[in-house]
Amino acid sequence: MKIKVMDKILAANDAWAEVNRKALKEKGIVMLNLIGSPGAGKTTLLEQTIDMLKKKKTMGVIEGDIATTKDAERIRKKGTAVYQINTGTACHLDAHLVNAAYNELARDKTIELVFVENIGNLVCPAEFDIGEDAKVALLSVTEGDDKIEKYPLLFTEAKVLVITKIGLLKYTNFNVSYVKKVFKKLNPFAPIVMVDSLTGDGLSTWVDFVLSLKK
Amino acid sequence: MKIKVMDKILAANDAWAEVNRKALKEKGIVMLNLIGSPGAGKTTLLEQTIDMLKKKKTMGVIEGDIATTKDAERIRKKGTAVYQINTGTACHLDAHLVNAAYNELARDKTIELVFVENIGNLVCPAEFDIGEDAKVALLSVTEGDDKIEKYPLLFTEAKVLVITKIGLLKYTNFNVSYVKKVFKKLNPFAPIVMVDSLTGDGLSTWVDFVLSLKK
Repeated sequence: MKIKVMDKILAANDAWAEVNRKALKEKGIVMLNLIGSPGAGKTTLLEQTIDMLKKKKTMGVIEGDIATTKDAERIRKKGTAVYQINTGTACHLDAHLVNAAYNELARDKTIELVFVENIGNLVCPAEFDIGEDAKVALLSVTEGDDKIEKYPLLFTEAKVLVITKIGLLKYTNFNVSYVKKVFKKLNPFAPIVMVDSLTGDGLSTWVDFVLSLKK
Repeated sequence: MKIKVMDKILAANDAWAEVNRKALKEKGIVMLNLIGSPGAGKTTLLEQTIDMLKKKKTMGVIEGDIATTKDAERIRKKGTAVYQINTGTACHLDAHLVNAAYNELARDKTIELVFVENIGNLVCPAEFDIGEDAKVALLSVTEGDDKIEKYPLLFTEAKVLVITKIGLLKYTNFNVSYVKKVFKKLNPFAPIVMVDSLTGDGLSTWVDFVLSLKK
């Protein structure tokens, strides 16, 4: 019973994801879906990405949160259009919510790039296709090196793995080569980018990945 | 429609939670429900707690994970009974799953203390009462100091807030007094314990809290 209901919800979501994919193609908008634990560094990575790309691209951000508009306020300070979704209790964004959000952002006809910051969670957001061009999986070194095996769906679906907070590596027992090996087993062709959004380390490689996505 | 289904699921869960509460009372078992992000330090805190309490208490651990038995293996090495639940896709444990688990653990009639390590997630686990004596909210300093406001339900429901990885404080911009203020606003009477499970800092206060829970 519970599973049947879930199947129905996912089928409805997939239909909306298809609508999104078609519309984004027509509009020429590339959409990235950032997924990671609470505190993995999604908002900070976005702040830096906006600074690095604002002369090249017109961008918009969709902020997904259970509560508060804190992240949206941080993004707005960067001068970028932002649409906040507060889900209340839902642990993920779905394709229908995202449809309303990018349609609002796309009233600016020059928009080329939309970043979705999903709810901080490694489980639910991975199950919901929102019609994005790429799921971006973030994993901070302070979370530990066992997370890919423990939450395999996200890391299988991701188009790129971004390992964050690498400046803190020396204070943790996070084993980078082990993580790379485990990730490559699940997802052999997705690139791995290592960044520290505070020092700027690795950000140019991340930005190159973003720019490589085309419509 | 979606909301009605959710109401039904929660009502069924609450009925099982009531069953658990009654049975745990009869058996004289105290049950703690540890909730935090992936990598907040739940398993490491449990490993240390077991070492510190094993001469005083007979304990059991219920490990909730999407996939793998990694955490259960770490606990088993400590010589403690452990029951692994793999939820596959579900982002939380529910009262029915936990019922089966503690009944298995309670075949050892001397058990007095059961720790449940919920799925790494700040959203879903907070919504499901499992009949526990205390929800324990873990927040690591590396996650950032905005998480209480962004995920208010867990921090409102918690009987204690455990701030973890405090040895890394000096490498972050985590503002402890701000976090304490925000938490006290949501949850005025729950204590706040600051720990570092690797150095041992603060663990005796945590263990005192555990021992203060009585049946």
